Amino acid sequence: MEREIGELKQPHRILLGPGPSTLDYRVLRAMTTPVVGYMDLTFLHVMDETTELLRYVFKTENEKTLVLSGSGTAGMEASLMNLIQKGDRVLVGVAGYFSQRISEIVKRCGGELITVEAPWGQIIEPGEMKEALDKYEPPVVFMVHGETSTGIEQPLAEIGAMVRERGVIFGVDSVASLGGVPVETDEWNIDIIYSGSQKCLGAPPGVAPVSINERAWQKISSRAAIPSFYLDLNLIWKYWGSERVYHHTPPMSLIYGLREALRIIEEEGLEGRFKRHEINSQALLAGLGAMGFSPFAQEGYGLVTLNAIEVPEDIDEGTVRKRLLDEYNIEIVGGLGPLAGKIWRIGLMGTSSTRNNVLTILAALENILTDMDKPPAASGVSAAVEVYRKKAR
Amino acid sequence: MEREIGELKQPHRILLGPGPSTLDYRVLRAMTTPVVGYMDLTFLHVMDETTELLRYVFKTENEKTLVLSGSGTAGMEASLMNLIQKGDRVLVGVAGYFSQRISEIVKRCGGELITVEAPWGQIIEPGEMKEALDKYEPPVVFMVHGETSTGIEQPLAEIGAMVRERGVIFGVDSVASLGGVPVETDEWNIDIIYSGSQKCLGAPPGVAPVSINERAWQKISSRAAIPSFYLDLNLIWKYWGSERVYHHTPPMSLIYGLREALRIIEEEGLEGRFKRHEINSQALLAGLGAMGFSPFAQEGYGLVTLNAIEVPEDIDEGTVRKRLLDEYNIEIVGGLGPLAGKIWRIGLMGTSSTRNNVLTILAALENILTDMDKPPAASGVSAAVEVYRKKAR
Repeated sequence: MEREIGELKQPHRILLGPGPSTLDYRVLRAMTTPVVGYMDLTFLHVMDETTELLRYVFKTENEKTLVLSGSGTAGMEASLMNLIQKGDRVLVGVAGYFSQRISEIVKRCGGELITVEAPWGQIIEPGEMKEALDKYEPPVVFMVHGETSTGIEQPLAEIGAMVRERGVIFGVDSVASLGGVPVETDEWNIDIIYSGSQKCLGAPPGVAPVSINERAWQKISSRAAIPSFYLDLNLIWKYWGSERVYHHTPPMSLIYGLREALRIIEEEGLEGRFKRHEINSQALLAGLGAMGFSPFAQEGYGLVTLNAIEVPEDIDEGTVRKRLLDEYNIEIVGGLGPLAGKIWRIGLMGTSSTRNNVLTILAALENILTDMDKPPAASGVSAAVEVYRKKAR
Repeated sequence: MEREIGELKQPHRILLGPGPSTLDYRVLRAMTTPVVGYMDLTFLHVMDETTELLRYVFKTENEKTLVLSGSGTAGMEASLMNLIQKGDRVLVGVAGYFSQRISEIVKRCGGELITVEAPWGQIIEPGEMKEALDKYEPPVVFMVHGETSTGIEQPLAEIGAMVRERGVIFGVDSVASLGGVPVETDEWNIDIIYSGSQKCLGAPPGVAPVSINERAWQKISSRAAIPSFYLDLNLIWKYWGSERVYHHTPPMSLIYGLREALRIIEEEGLEGRFKRHEINSQALLAGLGAMGFSPFAQEGYGLVTLNAIEVPEDIDEGTVRKRLLDEYNIEIVGGLGPLAGKIWRIGLMGTSSTRNNVLTILAALENILTDMDKPPAASGVSAAVEVYRKKAR
């Protein structure tokens, strides 16, 4: 070894990026639980408990709810690859980086990609989806609920109803929304939905919850073998379902962590959790507004778990972010793709969505901007405090 | 929620199955290290340290050494899918469950599968590989180094030389061998090699180390996009290499754990570690031999990290395993596929490979068998102790 690789020492960041979010000490502790064999009844029991908790969070009765051994992108790929056969027409609503990724994967699956596009930072209008549904008659539609790249929360209820009416399969990406804002899998007629662990669920990165209803399952279970063995849902369900056939060794420590994170969600209750995410976002945006910053997302559709903020041209956004990290241990991120250099993305997800974090970042920003001779118009902290005061009444 | 899902309580098993193996407390502790952003320089540094340690364990100079966000099967699939294009001829040495899995994935990749087969429990003879190489002239060859299903350690040096001589790409599965027995990636002319974290490396399940030389990389980097986005090594290397382009959020907690497990390996030293695995296997087999059991693997080729044992027909192997688990908290496993009911597989991997574990399982087996009116021929513990005594001289 050329250099000595010593004890692991990582900084304790305030994680206000797009995930991972802060891990509760209970989640960290759960990960230290002893691992057991993958067929150990005690582990199979943990799997069942985890999927039961996931059904609560997904608001679904779907039996086929499971945890994939990979990131949210693995959830995306599994959902697409297991549904789409070569030549299948797939309609994707595209208005950001992650819906582009869906499109990319549709093409890799050999699907015929049809898109309805909206500018980054805007929602996709249900009327446009309706037109495309009628014009192209796709058997499968995919949309992103919370777009991490733009901070948009895409309304899905109306589109879900249209899609179901036409007997089409509706797939949804809830990576940045599940556990932070309402996700109504069954009520919105979603047939397959996936998420990531490390955002609003507050679990460690590396596992992807997926829930599939019988309509989607019929398609998945009746088709020929997919190119991927690792993400083959038919084989994975043989392990997660009652057959208990070995497929691969799952990342137990992460599933322990996810289970604990889901227990924490259940204890808080979904409604209270959504309210917390909403108020903290309102306070952050009020604070930033007072300081002279505007939200990037279309009015009324901002994703409270990932707040995209326009950065004025006279502020070097990278310098501010670097100073937040170096001097305050606060992580926020910049824009992806065409939004690089133009926006900040401030995540308030799961355990990271706290009043203290909102006040801290506003104060830190005020200090940094003043130091850079760009003093904010008014106190962000005061404006945020005012929001909390009103909400407490 | 129909039932209350309480605090996580898992038993503390003695893990003598095919993995996961026991996690050292330092590995568990490392997993509780705070997560940070996936572009945080501190995390990128951890990635670099981890790959440096992996090069030491893989015995390679390969720059392209990385950790995939998935199990060993993800490592297998990534290695195959990134190399094999539709119609490519691939020669696979098949003599167990995991080489069958390789064959299955070759077919899913659209490859033309050619196999050299040996009975389960036997090695594949280099001469037979040579014949097939000359007859079929495949551009790619894959073999399993340590077959978890049969307990065979396949010799690779001679085959690697033949393969290289013919300008062919040589891929190797070291899931059950890396960190427990010598794996000479560069010396054996291996072009791409993958492993799993949860066996002899002693890390938590869920990540797959992969190392790729420039010969394999040339093929990987010059081909068209593969069906999988998640396991696309070209994209993953853009994150693990110097470009640092986002691909997906990696399972940081597992990488922290893997890094610590690799540090423990470096502290022990590979030679000492291999010796430990070898002696413990010898003691186990001597003990089982005294008790009347024979190794299943071809003589001289037993995998010391996974000891396959023939179970006489008059012993109900499932009952013994269940009693080991229920009464002694010891996990061993039975046979897969055609070997179900016929063998036991006793793993002595990583942190699980200890003298205490060997003595404990021998004593437990003796007690259980005596209790089942099948008393062993002689004391297994005494025979094992004798091995340790001789080795200590």
